[in-house]
Amino acid sequence: MVTRKEVAELAGVSEATVSRVFNGLGPMKPATKERVLEAAKQLNYHPNAIAQSFARRRSGNLGVVLPYMPKVHLFSAFYFSEILSGIGEQVREQGYDMLLSLLTPDESLDYTRLYRSQKVDACVILGSRDTPQQRESLMQLQAQGLPFCLVNQSFEGLSFHEVDADHVEGSYRAVRHLQEEGYRKIAFLNGSPQYSNSGDRLQGYMKAMSEAGLEVPPELLLEGNYSRKSGYEAASGLWEHRDQVEAVFAANDRMAIGLMQGLRERGWIAGRDFAIIGCDDSDAAKLSDPPLSSINVPFYEMGKEAARSVLAGLLHGGGTKDTRIKLPTSLVVRQSSRAVIINDS
Amino acid sequence: MVTRKEVAELAGVSEATVSRVFNGLGPMKPATKERVLEAAKQLNYHPNAIAQSFARRRSGNLGVVLPYMPKVHLFSAFYFSEILSGIGEQVREQGYDMLLSLLTPDESLDYTRLYRSQKVDACVILGSRDTPQQRESLMQLQAQGLPFCLVNQSFEGLSFHEVDADHVEGSYRAVRHLQEEGYRKIAFLNGSPQYSNSGDRLQGYMKAMSEAGLEVPPELLLEGNYSRKSGYEAASGLWEHRDQVEAVFAANDRMAIGLMQGLRERGWIAGRDFAIIGCDDSDAAKLSDPPLSSINVPFYEMGKEAARSVLAGLLHGGGTKDTRIKLPTSLVVRQSSRAVIINDS
Repeated sequence: MVTRKEVAELAGVSEATVSRVFNGLGPMKPATKERVLEAAKQLNYHPNAIAQSFARRRSGNLGVVLPYMPKVHLFSAFYFSEILSGIGEQVREQGYDMLLSLLTPDESLDYTRLYRSQKVDACVILGSRDTPQQRESLMQLQAQGLPFCLVNQSFEGLSFHEVDADHVEGSYRAVRHLQEEGYRKIAFLNGSPQYSNSGDRLQGYMKAMSEAGLEVPPELLLEGNYSRKSGYEAASGLWEHRDQVEAVFAANDRMAIGLMQGLRERGWIAGRDFAIIGCDDSDAAKLSDPPLSSINVPFYEMGKEAARSVLAGLLHGGGTKDTRIKLPTSLVVRQSSRAVIINDS
Repeated sequence: MVTRKEVAELAGVSEATVSRVFNGLGPMKPATKERVLEAAKQLNYHPNAIAQSFARRRSGNLGVVLPYMPKVHLFSAFYFSEILSGIGEQVREQGYDMLLSLLTPDESLDYTRLYRSQKVDACVILGSRDTPQQRESLMQLQAQGLPFCLVNQSFEGLSFHEVDADHVEGSYRAVRHLQEEGYRKIAFLNGSPQYSNSGDRLQGYMKAMSEAGLEVPPELLLEGNYSRKSGYEAASGLWEHRDQVEAVFAANDRMAIGLMQGLRERGWIAGRDFAIIGCDDSDAAKLSDPPLSSINVPFYEMGKEAARSVLAGLLHGGGTKDTRIKLPTSLVVRQSSRAVIINDS
């Protein structure tokens, strides 16, 4: 086993300097640092990372908290996989590893466990919902000064470090586009109200309808839970009021695709009998029949930005800042929302 | 800060017993263990996990090594996301966390770093390829007795702990199915030869062709790199020899879909002008137009099994066993491979 002493001797520096290089502490001449690293490399010296972390109380891991749902292939969901890809890219750049924790809603009360056990230095929290328990856990984290960043979720009345997308603007544009294509009777299939972006999307929809002087009778407001199945099931409710519906805006692609399937079974073809726009601009939108117009949400960039900003706060010792970053969305028009359908398939 | 002593007093046991409970060491009466955990819970006692790991040299993390490819949204690839979902499910069951390391092919030489730094107790390695460097890294891991499991990859002449799928049988069945539908001129679009399953699939294809007494002229053997783009590009080569081709078996869905797109541009529609079968049975196969027949590969179960077996070896102190587990595949027939197309869309 090569010792710190041997590295110090070869590099011609003190043992304390070797430690400072490997713990990343204090100011240091670049040339000195290089000499130490070169000596360590030559001697094949590897300081014990856990002992090291113990000394400086850093794990070198960014925690990523994901909601655990039994039997759901979580990483296969476009939303999570894109955010994770962005986080993964960023932690690599900063020399961090990524520790994934899958927590059920009950367990998520115990976010602080990850920090207490020094498994992570900071966390990015995905898929949180607005429940009294979650509010309490997050307020606890914040009170203890533990750095974290929420992605795609906010809590009314509370202010956390958040990276979100401009869902209000995205939804507004989607509904405006349908209006420009000549549709007046536009239904809205929203997701669960516990997610703040459901509220944001409702706001964008209502704004566009109100600006166009269009009424929103309750029959136009449908609710699913962001699953394909819930979209499929919403078809029966919509079908009952089909004389009141010419177009649909759905709060994600999966529900939009489920709704298209449910209506197709009743003889209504998307892009022929009604127009539809989804959200997320997932692979499924490109592959569906007809291809689905959708709001592009920059999930990958959101993940990257969440990791970047929470690690930056950590490295500069600034702790958590309660900043809310909103990335822009954009509308991608495909065949499902055009007034005149050009079927080239 | 609650101490071990206080927990011992409340539970009516020795301090050493408290340590043994939290380090999971030695035999222990269930009732004693429960009493200690109950006391710890009451007092809100949390042993420092890093100090603990330092004592027993365990991190409580399962490492997952993934190939890093700049700009590729890795977690969005069906293959990786499904395997990861399986690993995630299993580590949860065993009380482990998952440490993700994204390594470029060069860095992967340094697998041992993760163990040396005691960040992980064992690794599952995804996406490895048969190159001299990778062989060397893996042999080094094995020689040092560091526990790991390969998923979906084997190395001829070397024997590691591996979880794989029966790609030979899957490919054989796909080609047999095309023959049963009446096709004789069956091309094979394979992926990179550095992946062992490319070799397995070639073997299954050749076996089915040979048993049916069918020739395989070189024009029938195409090669891509498992990307959609490479399938799309393979269309031009196939188009030159189109009089020799009635059907295609592709080594994954993405290449199959790319090939379908490339041939569609030339006027050949899958399921009308030629038959095609892919591999993976990904979401894309279900959503493509026409829906793509495919070999279902149980990636989720493979991930689960890899995590289960490598952690089991660790907990029982048995170290790595050089066992190769092969899970069965199955053929899912959709419109792309039927001799008579029923177009219900």
